[in-house]
Amino acid sequence: MALPNHIGIIPDGNRRWAVKRGLSKEKGYSFGLKPGIELFKLCEKLGINELTYYGFTTDNTKRPSIQAKAFTKACIEAVKILSKENASLLVVGNSESPMFPKELLPYMVRKDFGKGGIKVNFLVNYGWEWDLGKTKNLSTTNRHSIISSLNSHDISRVDLIIRWGGRRRLSGFLPVQSVYSDFYIIDDYWPDFKMEHLIHALKWYNDQDITLGG
Amino acid sequence: MALPNHIGIIPDGNRRWAVKRGLSKEKGYSFGLKPGIELFKLCEKLGINELTYYGFTTDNTKRPSIQAKAFTKACIEAVKILSKENASLLVVGNSESPMFPKELLPYMVRKDFGKGGIKVNFLVNYGWEWDLGKTKNLSTTNRHSIISSLNSHDISRVDLIIRWGGRRRLSGFLPVQSVYSDFYIIDDYWPDFKMEHLIHALKWYNDQDITLGG
Repeated sequence: MALPNHIGIIPDGNRRWAVKRGLSKEKGYSFGLKPGIELFKLCEKLGINELTYYGFTTDNTKRPSIQAKAFTKACIEAVKILSKENASLLVVGNSESPMFPKELLPYMVRKDFGKGGIKVNFLVNYGWEWDLGKTKNLSTTNRHSIISSLNSHDISRVDLIIRWGGRRRLSGFLPVQSVYSDFYIIDDYWPDFKMEHLIHALKWYNDQDITLGG
Repeated sequence: MALPNHIGIIPDGNRRWAVKRGLSKEKGYSFGLKPGIELFKLCEKLGINELTYYGFTTDNTKRPSIQAKAFTKACIEAVKILSKENASLLVVGNSESPMFPKELLPYMVRKDFGKGGIKVNFLVNYGWEWDLGKTKNLSTTNRHSIISSLNSHDISRVDLIIRWGGRRRLSGFLPVQSVYSDFYIIDDYWPDFKMEHLIHALKWYNDQDITLGG
């Protein structure tokens, strides 16, 4: 089976999941933690090399502050949970903004935890315009120069993006690394993550004719 | 009904359509011309404001030259057909490369044809790295500054991207204007375009909760 080297995870639908259960919207985020670690362990077992989680964005921070507090807390906890695994961990996002949680500042340089292993990127207070906005004097059509000018330059091309919650959009997720990605949409909300979601996505990916635009 | 302001069209599957009919691959492109004008007329009737066709890319030009000749010819013809309509027409792409057809050089500045009207952008010898590669001294997170630094700066945010031929990917299509786009995939190949494809896509779009990342 042809496995993707790098999988992007858009764990959407936490608020809709909470509302469906009669909870207030912000209660949904903490139920995304268990899926996050289960997915990591399955990827590790399968031999995936790189994983990027869409934590929260600068766009998301415009939501009501009770929600912003809840998803920020969930992201801090998720990174701490992952740091107990064998992984090469990196947090990427705009840390110069007050919305960036100071607890995650130590993770902004890639570091091996445990025995190291799978590269795990966690986007926190990420914005596509922040990512693109540093590019200086490019005047090039060299792909490597463009990628190395990004704020997310340490994140490689994404082969497969899996989005939970039924929306068929990127919502600003790594626009440059996603130019050739295949998108797989799961209608279930992220807190309802099942192993089969990932397995179905990988089977589907295996049937795709990957051409990188050619 | 909430209509998208700007629709991106990825008219894929011409070669697979040809092979299915026992034709050689390059024969498929000319069968994409009629769908292109039918789609334009339907969008005009519905009151869509802007339409971007994915003609061919710098990636595509690496294909066998008999194919490159055929899709280049089809793009030249498509632009000429559109120039007989009421439209504000613009060709966007890397015209400094020998792969850019000189016949389309006069269309690289937006110009009203007929009575003007719907903005139609046609990507010809377009490359995402060419599009991003001009950005100079950005050092900004201002969206307008980023967009105005693109080679495709005259193309606005895309609301809905419709792709024919079943692939679920952007293949380098306008990475910045697509950050918030909703994607609608049609399994039929582009030469099998039917009006209902567009109607179904618009009905689906109308049911989406458009948040622009929020």
